[in-house]
Amino acid sequence: MFLRPFASTSTLPPTIRQLLSSLQPTGQATKVQLSGWIKSVRRQKNVTFAVINDGSCASGLQAVLKPDATPHNLTNGASVRICGNLVQSLGRGQSYELQLRAYPIQKQALPVEFLRDNAHLRARTDINAAMLRLRDSVLRTLRSYYEAQDFHYVHTPILTSNDCEGGGETFRVSPASSAPSSGQSPDPSAQAEFFSQPTYLTVSSQLHLEVLAASLSRVYTLSPCFRAERSQTNRHLAEFWMLEAEWAFINHVGDVCYVVEESLKNVLLQCRSENALLWKDGDEAKLKSLEDASRPGIPWTRMSYTDAVKELQKYQSSSRVGFEFQPAWGKALQSEHERWLSERLVGGPVFVTDYPTSLKPFYMRANDDGKTVACFDLLVPFIGELVGGSLREERSSHLIEAIQRHGLKEEEYGWYVDLRKYGSAPHGGYGLGFERLISWMSGIENVRECIAMPRWAKRMLL
Amino acid sequence: MFLRPFASTSTLPPTIRQLLSSLQPTGQATKVQLSGWIKSVRRQKNVTFAVINDGSCASGLQAVLKPDATPHNLTNGASVRICGNLVQSLGRGQSYELQLRAYPIQKQALPVEFLRDNAHLRARTDINAAMLRLRDSVLRTLRSYYEAQDFHYVHTPILTSNDCEGGGETFRVSPASSAPSSGQSPDPSAQAEFFSQPTYLTVSSQLHLEVLAASLSRVYTLSPCFRAERSQTNRHLAEFWMLEAEWAFINHVGDVCYVVEESLKNVLLQCRSENALLWKDGDEAKLKSLEDASRPGIPWTRMSYTDAVKELQKYQSSSRVGFEFQPAWGKALQSEHERWLSERLVGGPVFVTDYPTSLKPFYMRANDDGKTVACFDLLVPFIGELVGGSLREERSSHLIEAIQRHGLKEEEYGWYVDLRKYGSAPHGGYGLGFERLISWMSGIENVRECIAMPRWAKRMLL
Repeated sequence: MFLRPFASTSTLPPTIRQLLSSLQPTGQATKVQLSGWIKSVRRQKNVTFAVINDGSCASGLQAVLKPDATPHNLTNGASVRICGNLVQSLGRGQSYELQLRAYPIQKQALPVEFLRDNAHLRARTDINAAMLRLRDSVLRTLRSYYEAQDFHYVHTPILTSNDCEGGGETFRVSPASSAPSSGQSPDPSAQAEFFSQPTYLTVSSQLHLEVLAASLSRVYTLSPCFRAERSQTNRHLAEFWMLEAEWAFINHVGDVCYVVEESLKNVLLQCRSENALLWKDGDEAKLKSLEDASRPGIPWTRMSYTDAVKELQKYQSSSRVGFEFQPAWGKALQSEHERWLSERLVGGPVFVTDYPTSLKPFYMRANDDGKTVACFDLLVPFIGELVGGSLREERSSHLIEAIQRHGLKEEEYGWYVDLRKYGSAPHGGYGLGFERLISWMSGIENVRECIAMPRWAKRMLL
Repeated sequence: MFLRPFASTSTLPPTIRQLLSSLQPTGQATKVQLSGWIKSVRRQKNVTFAVINDGSCASGLQAVLKPDATPHNLTNGASVRICGNLVQSLGRGQSYELQLRAYPIQKQALPVEFLRDNAHLRARTDINAAMLRLRDSVLRTLRSYYEAQDFHYVHTPILTSNDCEGGGETFRVSPASSAPSSGQSPDPSAQAEFFSQPTYLTVSSQLHLEVLAASLSRVYTLSPCFRAERSQTNRHLAEFWMLEAEWAFINHVGDVCYVVEESLKNVLLQCRSENALLWKDGDEAKLKSLEDASRPGIPWTRMSYTDAVKELQKYQSSSRVGFEFQPAWGKALQSEHERWLSERLVGGPVFVTDYPTSLKPFYMRANDDGKTVACFDLLVPFIGELVGGSLREERSSHLIEAIQRHGLKEEEYGWYVDLRKYGSAPHGGYGLGFERLISWMSGIENVRECIAMPRWAKRMLL
């Protein structure tokens, strides 16, 4: 009979994390088989110690090899499958060790100088692997939060005819096949043909999320976003991930802040253990500020833009050093202002709300004062702006006026205005730079180190 | 003092789904307030019935309004906030109804003819909203499965210098700002400048996942993928989502199949209730085939490509109708062949394994027979190919040979070969077309209806 079933394993074998977390501290030896890569080797006269990790958690396992069971070519980076007895360790710093009958299935060294220019090997470093696991656990915690609040995860398009905030540095997309060879330019007529209109990579999912929030009430997504930013700072990537949430039937910008604060405190508390390795040699002051921010029961500070400017001006006039840029109502807050507010004035995260209309995008809801919009930026110490959000203008006449005032083409936003013509409801939401959150939580300063394969101007390995 | 705390809600108010699932069937009336959109209105002499939904679940709530409490302009699509008593319904087909003291906060009709050409309103239809909720719950179930197996969720790049399988119809990316106006062509020199090399949108995350599996052992992602496919079929989108998993320390392609089968059966079983609305008027035969596939304990059929071709040939020579394309060893399986295998021969999902080397990409692991590779396609009734996977060639000499044989440029795959030079381990994985899975599960035939905002050749609304 040809329909033969294959021999198949019933489940995947346990990872090192699963193995360690399932063990009872009985002191008895457990026979195990596991696979991983050698992280370090220390040869002594009668015994060799080798640390093995499979990337499932930060701590590896120390294997203890007798000389006759130690291959001479056992080196860092070698992949091994190992059988042995797992016993509680007598050494300090680890709970278990493996006494081995081992054979490496491959064996090659991983020279450290390789790492910098070899992005494909970078994930094998402990720090980078810990960062990748942190991304995963932050995401798990955020999802639990949203799911408990009945938000639905949705997928918004990456290709769009719209550039959301207007004037962003966008990327343009066209089919490659129209180019005679990969070294040459895409043919614009083929592009015009392909989607019948100019096509860009999204810079934000917000407008699309608003479409879906008008059906499912509460939606969120973690989506790649793209900015053709040429500035070479440690806060910018050409490709980055944005967590965006949008929901209907909300009337106060403070309620948006509340969801941001609650979800982030959850993350700070629940992902603390994931962070241990990353903060091992970290800056004490930063770590303390992070721990202060995670305290439940102590709400993060909120202040209006107007009050923030007053405080900045007070400091400017009283301090000998002062700011490079003069703070004034109606002017954008500079990075130095933002950092002073969160690091010096407040000493923690601060929601700055109700910015002047002229400083913010067209879609934010006008306040009754006629001068400001119902929005906020969340500023955190050592990072600056982490989250931006607002109520969205749900009144079609106000929205049309704002589109005109910003000099945008009304016909391009017809569908967006339509959302207000039919079943319009008050709504709001926010966007959070995922790599900035990882940077804040891990103490890794450069956002390029907070993503598996970073892309920035002039740089795209792999 | 300027640091005034805002008045903020302590949690978001309950959605209709949360309300209904928290109720005890005591028969007592519960006073509630809820927000949503009107789905239908039926006016009678002494009473008006209006169905309200907020998108949190398929079933809405029926509101019963006295004439004096019924606004004359209460119409489909209007957004309302409603207060009333929730009581068990005497009518058939619903468990609860709302007796109202109501005021609509906005009121506009949503004409049905709007929907087809108005993608921004499409999500408000019951079917589309149910499809969106199904995507979310499928994803939740898949994530639980992977998390239980100690997989880490990772993010792979969308922008890449690599086109994975070679010869795919890719999209090319360049900064828009180099174009003098949005109607004109991107400037290729600006592009060359931006990333220092030609840049494409990813067609698959696999090669990048292999990089990360060599560190974290088990990884998966749901990533947007792009193909500049000009064919107008109901199986293709220019932008679609691929679920891809990759893991190390695996030696049999049957073990990859096992993970696919186990995870998908989980999804079929756990998301069954989400599907009720979508299958209301669905095809009985398709629904039965889906339910058969979800039976635990009955393994999905596996057969080799070689055996599959024998069966196809047997049928071809015995049947009067036969296939349009002659089946033969070494030739690709056509859509008609794939459907016959799953719908007629097997009557369910079937893994076809070990295809000829010449039919598959360079990275698949060579079998010992020298003619085939350790791979599979999962074919399901009414859909065709749903999943493709393989062991990956972990032996560097075999891989280099395959790169040469496929006429690929060795220098472009240097980093990929490197993964085999340092700590190479046997590994494998698969990719699943997410919209095809939704199509299979929901009975919605066209994949364009299985994504919130579909993009295909000549079509990109919003």
